[in-house]
This record gives sequence, structure tokens and C-alpha cells, in this order.
Amino acid sequence: MLSKVGSYQFLAEPFHCDFSNRLFMGHLGNHLLNAADFHANDRRFGMHYLNSIKKTWVISRLAIEMDEMPLSYARFTVETWIENAMRFFTARNFQVTDVDTGKIYGYGRSIWAMIDTETRQPTNILEIHDGLLSTFVEKDKPCPIDNVSRVKMTEKGEFVRAIQTNYSDVDMNEHINSIKYIEHVLDLWNLDWYTKHPIHRFEIAYVAESHCGDTLLFYSEKVDEFTFCVRIMKKETPNADEVEVCRSQVTFKH
Amino acid sequence: MLSKVGSYQFLAEPFHCDFSNRLFMGHLGNHLLNAADFHANDRRFGMHYLNSIKKTWVISRLAIEMDEMPLSYARFTVETWIENAMRFFTARNFQVTDVDTGKIYGYGRSIWAMIDTETRQPTNILEIHDGLLSTFVEKDKPCPIDNVSRVKMTEKGEFVRAIQTNYSDVDMNEHINSIKYIEHVLDLWNLDWYTKHPIHRFEIAYVAESHCGDTLLFYSEKVDEFTFCVRIMKKETPNADEVEVCRSQVTFKH
Repeated sequence: MLSKVGSYQFLAEPFHCDFSNRLFMGHLGNHLLNAADFHANDRRFGMHYLNSIKKTWVISRLAIEMDEMPLSYARFTVETWIENAMRFFTARNFQVTDVDTGKIYGYGRSIWAMIDTETRQPTNILEIHDGLLSTFVEKDKPCPIDNVSRVKMTEKGEFVRAIQTNYSDVDMNEHINSIKYIEHVLDLWNLDWYTKHPIHRFEIAYVAESHCGDTLLFYSEKVDEFTFCVRIMKKETPNADEVEVCRSQVTFKH
Repeated sequence: MLSKVGSYQFLAEPFHCDFSNRLFMGHLGNHLLNAADFHANDRRFGMHYLNSIKKTWVISRLAIEMDEMPLSYARFTVETWIENAMRFFTARNFQVTDVDTGKIYGYGRSIWAMIDTETRQPTNILEIHDGLLSTFVEKDKPCPIDNVSRVKMTEKGEFVRAIQTNYSDVDMNEHINSIKYIEHVLDLWNLDWYTKHPIHRFEIAYVAESHCGDTLLFYSEKVDEFTFCVRIMKKETPNADEVEVCRSQVTFKH
């Protein structure tokens, strides 16, 4: 019987590190998504099985909170486990730990839905292999960070940037890659800012898909001196209405 | 005694695959650079040692030629070896092979210089550990693709795009990441084009460094129906002169 908690080892690759020699948040996010994928595949409710029955996982929300980012060449494990499972949503947590020192770098939380790939409608997670996923729920392992929120913004925010989406932004489902939104949001700050204020917490709520060729518009709202919300809207054509794609919140260190 | 050829295993991670379910060329390029780095570090002439004596490797040219790109979840090895070493340049080759089937996906060639990190001037590669690198030269392993060229363009090319460089583009040396140029070049074609014409060969000659905040300007020249050269120029300020950063050549399948 497989354990409830899966553990996967990664390397902070040198070309995945930023100017401060620390892993980019986007690449860490990618490692968390990989760990989630490996954990689910190993336990027979991953994409490999779901694709065969025309279903897929869709990430709804992700929060990552770090004491520190791994330095280049650090070997770290991502542990991941399911905190709870309901019919239409499941919560999956992450812990990031240095292999050599045992130091805990930080934690992550995420919320996932399962959809039918033909109708794009939510499907019942607990129907997969007669509720197999429930048998892996792990309630005792701590994840001492705030819950992942829906990222509320009081207003639309101030328009700060528009970008065109291109070939490199697109994933296997022909949607803009979930990780690319993280990179594009974090590109709103410059190196001077990051020198003084590394990221403490990054949170994103995925609202709608966007596609190659869409224009993404970024709206920023300052919550306090070190916390900003960024809303991403898309325009499919120059004259189309703007549609919300995701909302994110970034908290920097003081 | 370590072997002349180093072999490193990688996974075609699902979120590193493009819309066609195949590994992005940029991510493959990153794996090749990692393999080069691991191979050199393992043999005492890598960044770990060089940084301690204020020297570093600088990639000058890279060519990757693929029969096929690995599909998502494929496990593949990157073998790498030094084909020759002169005072100021060394040639390093790559072979990409599927772990499960033994299929050879393709090959790579690269040229590297070593510089002093303080003066930024070339230094003598053969002085490192009394010419240690020469003892690893492997002349017999085949690399059956054309040599890496300087990428000649007959004219400046037609201006096709300008982009701003941002936080995510910058590497640990505070230069624009070598791999990001590959992504930005390949973003010049759309999904329709890639559907019909996957990349056969990608080649890039690195001429000068660019930095965060520089504007990159892309100039394209059609060599034949399926071959294009792309020159990247930088502007450090809006009124600055344009300076050449790199030249690349992309050959697509018919």
C-alpha cells in the first residue's frame, strides 16, 4: 500500500535561479505541480488514468509561502499529500525541505477540481475508482501557512502592463501554462525591488483559461506597502471585452 | 578515473511540453546546459571550481538538431563529451537518447570560452589544473550533425518584434539567460506554423550579453522556405544605439 504522503526530490538547477542565486518562484511552482502529478499518477488517480476516461485535473488555486528559496544546486524534496476531498474539490498541500540540512524552506496549498474534457464540466472526484482518493486523505501532517484564498480585490486595479501570449506560453492542453502566469505577474517588479524584498508568499486563483494569441492585461492593487494584488484579464481580439483569467496576491519580505 | 563521456538522465516534464505534447526546444537546451555543467563539475573544471578562482565558462555557440522531440513523460539521457580543447575555445557535443527504447532523438554541438570574471577577458582553458580538460577529450564518439556555425546573415534582416526584458529573463550572473533567447526567438512563429513544421535544427551564436531592462529587437531573414535567421539586437535606453546580442538560425521540418 502506497503511503499517503508522496516525496519527490528536485535540484535547484543553476539556470532556474534568479539574479540572487535563488530558485525562481515559477520554477518552484512547476516542481510542486510535478510532485502533485507524480503523487496522483502513482496512486492511480493521475492524468495517465484520467485521460483514458476523458477527465482531467484542473488547478483552481495555489499558494506558496517560503521562509527562504533554495540556493542554486540545493537538493530539496517536495512532499505532497491530500488534506481533504469533497465531490468537486480536493485540497492538496506541499512541504519543501532541504535534502542535506533538513531545513524546511516553506509550504504550499492548492485546490483542484476534476473536469470532463469533452463537456468541460466538473465531475465527481469521489467516483474515481469508488472513492479511492479518499483513502489517501492525510489530516495529521501540519501545513502551517494560511489557507489558500480566492484573492479578493476591492477594485479592478490600476492597469500596469499588457503582453501578447506566444508559442512558449502554451501547454499541452493548448491553454496558457499555469506557471507562465506566475512568471508574468512577478515580472511586474524590477531587480532593485527584489534585491530588497524577496517574495514571502505568492497566491493565485485561476478563474478562466486563456489561449495563444490572447492579449493579457495586468491590473495591480496595492494592499499595503509589501502586499499587492494583480488581476489578469484577457482580450481574445483587439475589440473583444476583457474577461478575467486569474487573480494573484504577492507578499514581499520587509 | 571518470569516463570521458558523462551521462545524465532527465524527464520530459509535462509542463515543459508544448501544445503538441513534445518537449520545448528551450527546455531541452536547458537540459543540455545542465548536463554540460554536471559533466564539468564532476571532472573538476566546472563552475564550482572556476568560481573559486574568479573564472567562468561562457557559451559561445549552440546547435541542436533533432529527429524528434521527446514526448511528455519520456525519460531520456543526455550524454556529453568534449570533442576538442584549444587555448581559448572548447567544443562540447551532446547525444539525446530515450532511456526506455534506446532511440536517439538527436544531437547537439556547442563552443565554449572561459573568461576571467573580473576583467571579462578570455583566459587559457588549458591552464586549469595543468591541462586537465585535455585528458577528457573524446574524438571517437560520433556526432553526426553539421558543425555549429557563426550564423551568417547577408543583411540586417526585417524588423519583426521588440520585447522588454524582465526579472524572469535574468540569470545568476545578472545577464539575460541564454535559454530565454531561444524561447523569445521561437515565439516568432505561431501554433499553426508549428503544427505543420516542427523544429529540425536550432542554432544560436551568442555575441554580447544583455541585461534586465534592455529592449530586445528581433530581425528576421528568410534563407529558404523552411530556414530563417533571426538577429537579436539590444537597446539599453530608448535613444541608445542598437548592439548585436545574438544570431540564430532555425530550420523547420517540411
